[in-house]
Amino acid sequence: MEQKQEIDPWGSGAVIDYGHVFSEFGLQRFPEKMREKLGHIFFERNIIIAHRDFEKVADCISKKKKFVNITGIASSGPYHLGHKADIDLFRFFKEKGAANYFCVCDLDAYTSRPDSRVPSLEKAKEFAVGNVADALALGLEPEDIRVQSAREPRYYGFAFELSKKITASTFEAIYGHIDLGKVSANLLQYADILHCQLPEYSGPMPSVTGIGLDQDPHARAVRDIAKRLPYKMHTPGFIYFRHQSGLKEGSKMSSSEPDTAIFLNDPIKEMERKIKNAFTGGRNTAKEHRRLGGVLEIDKVYELLLFHYPDGKKLAKIADDFSSGKMLSGEMKQIATDFFREILESHQAKARENMKTAREIVFGK
Amino acid sequence: MEQKQEIDPWGSGAVIDYGHVFSEFGLQRFPEKMREKLGHIFFERNIIIAHRDFEKVADCISKKKKFVNITGIASSGPYHLGHKADIDLFRFFKEKGAANYFCVCDLDAYTSRPDSRVPSLEKAKEFAVGNVADALALGLEPEDIRVQSAREPRYYGFAFELSKKITASTFEAIYGHIDLGKVSANLLQYADILHCQLPEYSGPMPSVTGIGLDQDPHARAVRDIAKRLPYKMHTPGFIYFRHQSGLKEGSKMSSSEPDTAIFLNDPIKEMERKIKNAFTGGRNTAKEHRRLGGVLEIDKVYELLLFHYPDGKKLAKIADDFSSGKMLSGEMKQIATDFFREILESHQAKARENMKTAREIVFGK
Repeated sequence: MEQKQEIDPWGSGAVIDYGHVFSEFGLQRFPEKMREKLGHIFFERNIIIAHRDFEKVADCISKKKKFVNITGIASSGPYHLGHKADIDLFRFFKEKGAANYFCVCDLDAYTSRPDSRVPSLEKAKEFAVGNVADALALGLEPEDIRVQSAREPRYYGFAFELSKKITASTFEAIYGHIDLGKVSANLLQYADILHCQLPEYSGPMPSVTGIGLDQDPHARAVRDIAKRLPYKMHTPGFIYFRHQSGLKEGSKMSSSEPDTAIFLNDPIKEMERKIKNAFTGGRNTAKEHRRLGGVLEIDKVYELLLFHYPDGKKLAKIADDFSSGKMLSGEMKQIATDFFREILESHQAKARENMKTAREIVFGK
Repeated sequence: MEQKQEIDPWGSGAVIDYGHVFSEFGLQRFPEKMREKLGHIFFERNIIIAHRDFEKVADCISKKKKFVNITGIASSGPYHLGHKADIDLFRFFKEKGAANYFCVCDLDAYTSRPDSRVPSLEKAKEFAVGNVADALALGLEPEDIRVQSAREPRYYGFAFELSKKITASTFEAIYGHIDLGKVSANLLQYADILHCQLPEYSGPMPSVTGIGLDQDPHARAVRDIAKRLPYKMHTPGFIYFRHQSGLKEGSKMSSSEPDTAIFLNDPIKEMERKIKNAFTGGRNTAKEHRRLGGVLEIDKVYELLLFHYPDGKKLAKIADDFSSGKMLSGEMKQIATDFFREILESHQAKARENMKTAREIVFGK
C-alpha cells in the first residue's frame, strides 16, 4: 500500500491534537525556520513543538552571547529515557556556550510526592545520587549540577522570597486546591528557574528551560513572578517537548510504574522485555500488516527511536518501511533493542564510574 | 487611703482577663511552686503566666541535663524593651546550661511583612545586623546566634520538609485566609523551633521557647507537627509572657510605631520624651492622686519597671507608694528615666563595639 504522501516521520501524528495549546494558552509554535539551523534531532523532528520567548535565546546562540540553560528533574526515582531526552536537550544548550544550571530536585520530590513514593528527604537524596551519576554519564560536569538539598543560603532565601510574590489563588487555579507540600515544591522549582538571573549568580539574561506541555501553568506562573521581582530579570523562556508516551497503551512514562518506561539503570534483559511488550502500531497478523502497513503514529517503539535514534536517514527508512508494511513490529523492536542495548551498556558503565563523585555532590565530601 | 490588701505588685491586674486562655485553649497555669525556685524576676513577678510542657525542661534544669533553649525574633526593625525581655529570658536559660538557638528571623520578617515595612530581604538583613549587635551586647555569644538567611542546607531542607506535615486549613484557621508569605514565615519559625532536635543538631530533648499569649496558635501548630515528623522529637515546650503593653493607652509595643516602645538604640532624649508622654495610672491632679492613689494596673511606666527593674524590694515600695498616693506619676517616671538611661547608655556602648562582629555573623566574613 502506497501512502507516502501521508507520512511525516517527524510529525506529532493524529493521536494528539496540540491545536488548543496555541489558541487557548498563547504558546508560540516553534518557528520552522529555526529547526534546521539549531541542528539537533529534537528540533528537526518536531519533538520541540512550542515555545515562549525562545527567540531571545536563539539570538544569544547566533551572536555567541551567554544565556541561562536551566533544567530541573525531580529525584523521585531512577531516570528513564524521558529524562535522558531532557538531559540531551540540556547538553545541547550547554554545548552552545550557556551558563548551566542542572537542578537535581530532591527537596521538591520529597515535599510534593506522597510518602508511599518518597518517604523521606534522605530517600530523595539517595535517588539524587543515582540521578547525578546518570547526568555525569550523559556528559554533564559536576559544576553544572545543583542539588536542591545542598545549595547555598542565597538560593533558599530566594525560594522563600518568592512566596511573597505569588498568591494562594494561583496554586488553587493550577491544582484545584492548596497542598502546602506542592506549594513548597513549586517555590523551589520557580527558584531553580529564576535564581540563575540573580546578581549573585549569572545576572539577568535570557533563559531557556525545556518542559512538557502539561507544565505550562507553572511556566506562566514563574514568568509572572519574574516580572514582580525587583531584580530586572528577563522573563524566562521555555521550549516544549511534545508528549512522551509510556510503553503501554495510553500510559505516560512514570518513575512509579516501571513498565511504562525504560530506565537508564534497567538490566538489559529488562529493557528487552519492556520493548518486547511495548504497544505498537503493528497489525494483528503479519499478512494484515503487509497489506495495510503499520500505524506509525501510535507505535511506542517508533516514538522511542524518534526521540533517541540519531541517524535521521535510517529512521526515515524505518518509518517508511513500517508504514508501508514492509517492516513488521518485531523487526522494529529488534532494531530498538539492539540500539538501546548499546546505549544502556555504555551508559551504565559510565554511571558506575561516576557514583563516587555523585555521592560527594549530593552528600558532600 | 489604705488598700494594701488589694495590691499584688506582681499581679496581672484587672485590666486583662487571662482566664479564657486556660479554659479555652488548654494552656497550663505556670506552677506557683516553681516561681521562687527558678530565681528570675519573670517567674517571681507573674510575668510568665502560663506554659505547655515546661515541667520537662524544669526537670532538666534541676537534674543539670541538657535541654533546648530556642527563641526567634523577627528582624523587622530595631529591638525594643519587649525584645530585651525575650533575650533576658533566653539568657536565663542559657545560664542554666541549655543548648542555645537564638534565631534572628530576617527571612521570615521579609516574607510576612508588607513591603512598606520590610521592602527587601537585604533590608531585613540590615535590621538583623543591629539586632545581632543588640543580642551580643545583652550577653549572647556568636555561637548562640543563628541568622535565618545564613544557615546550612539541612536547616532549609527541614523547613521545606515541614510543609508536607501541615495542611492549608491550619493556616486558614490561624489567619482566616492563606497568605503564602506568611506560610513561608511560619514554616521557617516552626523549623527554628524544631530543627534543634534533629540528629544533625542537638538531637531529641525537651525544649523551651518564651512567647506571647497571642502566639499560642503557632505553638499548637508546631507541637502538632513535631508529633507527625519521623524524628522522635520531644513535643516542644512553651512558656508565655503576660501581655506587654505599649507606652500609649491601649497600644502594643510595635517596631512600626516608634512611640509605643523604647528601642534599645533610642537616643537618651528620645527615651526621656517617651517616658514623659507614657500613659500612666496617675490621677488628674496631685491632690486627687494623694487622696485616691494611683492605678498601678494601667500604668505603663510601672509595667516597664515590672519587666526590667531588678530590685524587687525597691519595686514593691514603688508599687506601694504609687498605689497609696504617696508617689506621683512624675516621680515614678523620674525613677524609670534614671534607670533606663543607665541601661541604654551602657547597652548602646556595648552594641557599638559588637557591630563589626554582628555584620560578619549576618553577611559572612
